[in-house]
Amino acid sequence: MELKNDLFLRAARGEAIERYPVWLMRQAGRILPEYRALRATLSGFKELVETPALAAEVTIQPVDHLDVDAAIIFSDILVVPEAMGLPYQMLEQKGPWFEKTIRSKQQLDLLDKNIDVADRLSYVFEALKITKRELNGRVPLIGFAGAPWTILCYMVEGSGSKTFSESRKLLYTETALAHELLSRITEVTIAYLKLQVEAGADALQLFDSWAGILGKEQYAVFGLHYIKKIVDEFPNIPFTVFSKGAVASLPDITKVNCTTIGLDWNMDMGIVRDLVGETKTLQGNLDPCLLYASNEIIEKETLILLKSFKSQRHIVNLGHGVYPDIDPEKVKVLIKTVKNYEN
Amino acid sequence: MELKNDLFLRAARGEAIERYPVWLMRQAGRILPEYRALRATLSGFKELVETPALAAEVTIQPVDHLDVDAAIIFSDILVVPEAMGLPYQMLEQKGPWFEKTIRSKQQLDLLDKNIDVADRLSYVFEALKITKRELNGRVPLIGFAGAPWTILCYMVEGSGSKTFSESRKLLYTETALAHELLSRITEVTIAYLKLQVEAGADALQLFDSWAGILGKEQYAVFGLHYIKKIVDEFPNIPFTVFSKGAVASLPDITKVNCTTIGLDWNMDMGIVRDLVGETKTLQGNLDPCLLYASNEIIEKETLILLKSFKSQRHIVNLGHGVYPDIDPEKVKVLIKTVKNYEN
Repeated sequence: MELKNDLFLRAARGEAIERYPVWLMRQAGRILPEYRALRATLSGFKELVETPALAAEVTIQPVDHLDVDAAIIFSDILVVPEAMGLPYQMLEQKGPWFEKTIRSKQQLDLLDKNIDVADRLSYVFEALKITKRELNGRVPLIGFAGAPWTILCYMVEGSGSKTFSESRKLLYTETALAHELLSRITEVTIAYLKLQVEAGADALQLFDSWAGILGKEQYAVFGLHYIKKIVDEFPNIPFTVFSKGAVASLPDITKVNCTTIGLDWNMDMGIVRDLVGETKTLQGNLDPCLLYASNEIIEKETLILLKSFKSQRHIVNLGHGVYPDIDPEKVKVLIKTVKNYEN
Repeated sequence: MELKNDLFLRAARGEAIERYPVWLMRQAGRILPEYRALRATLSGFKELVETPALAAEVTIQPVDHLDVDAAIIFSDILVVPEAMGLPYQMLEQKGPWFEKTIRSKQQLDLLDKNIDVADRLSYVFEALKITKRELNGRVPLIGFAGAPWTILCYMVEGSGSKTFSESRKLLYTETALAHELLSRITEVTIAYLKLQVEAGADALQLFDSWAGILGKEQYAVFGLHYIKKIVDEFPNIPFTVFSKGAVASLPDITKVNCTTIGLDWNMDMGIVRDLVGETKTLQGNLDPCLLYASNEIIEKETLILLKSFKSQRHIVNLGHGVYPDIDPEKVKVLIKTVKNYEN
């Protein structure tokens, strides 16, 4: 089906655009009253993730209510470790929690082998198919996964962490084990993303939320090495790599065959453009806290970002997922400012 | 008193050194069995901080047992907000917790005004005097404080946080209030550090643990602006600014009149040296998790760091505080490697 609005895809590929596309990480979810109304009828977050018709519904809500230029499938990066045999719970206020963790060869051996990704994650593919049909070509649909390093962090720690020191310890004490786990996550992630494309994803994004806790050398070996393997399987798909906090690794990230680099709000757009050149589209990078400010300040800061762009290779986004207590009207100010900007 | 080992001070000032000095952030504390034995006899962390003779004892322990080239006074950055009228508790496993927080003008007005820093923080100055006397010139003594932005974060959040979004929100919604609070913290910190020098501190360090959650522009306005005010009061004291995670702000940090820049392990030493030039000493920046590795790997990675130095303006340290479950024998391997290295 022909897309009515393919700005996001053209910007990713470096093609000509009439204006900059804009969407928000975590736009499908907590900020929308329509989402909260639906969520209140359910047993929990995972019921929503695992019920395709409902996941599709909340994926489309921000397209209906915020007028964003792309939809991103409502799901969670932790469905991958779960498919590998490590189930998780999403605890209110506390975040994800795994009963079992992987810190030894014996524990690694307990993971399921040769899993049928199409079967285990069928609910995601079904959600993508429904979303694609119901979007009816309005905007592109983005599929995603966690990057292997970030998924390893959760599998090793069993939850979030301030320092992720157990995961980083493993890189020194059980290097071969770390690589074996990263390889297995990579393999499942490639199968998972291929099936997402088959189910209708027009573009892909890898979220490496904990990239920034590794130094440059370790991130090259334990992070980007596996990201490259994944990206190289998708030569024709607009592909965003979002390595949060990995400023020192930008020259290395530039060498990955992705179309787009996601930037958090700590990264200086001008410095990044100078480092990266015009070979990549840059996605980001407003401070999520900007949306607590007045309409005037939101408009002013968004215009400062837009004016800092030296080319068309930009997709406007926040530098991190939108915070749950943000007023959707503030998001609309941001989106309207981008749409009205004449570049 | 003449110092027997002033390597740390000479390296900070850019003077000639026979070998690189080495010490560890958080060296006084949890890793040492001697510390744990003492701590077990006390009611809690704060009793140790507030009892000068005991704080002095644990300050000197790493000089005795690890043979480091500097001592750093055992204390906590949160004694400053407490002196300002916001008492804290240190909860086991959970970290610091404040009953009251500052998110409005009314709350700010409840803080004590024109406080007598010499009186309220007398236990720190007393600890410095005892330490100085008992060190007997063996190594320099470092005094420290939290940088105003990091102290504001704790005063606004009331505890640690994943995103510090309440603090960052304040910068947008209550900008004048944020500046007033930062100014007041700055004023108290200057008085506090001056009294530390009077009590015997040979050098000073500002810890800006949450520098990295601000973008470059905001860190210039709400972070470095106040750090500069503090540093400018100490033109003749070796002074380290440790802005954790603030990679994009390095060119701005270089403009601060400090002698030394602290680096976390995500920062690439070569890139930083190119940015900073030879006007500053660089302190850091081994990954704290390296100390989980074998002796061979610790030695190898320490040598890689040492060989990456292009000049004498370096002080070896970790890129963050040493983790509590590190074996002190591993720390000794690191220290021995630095001391045996011929540059």
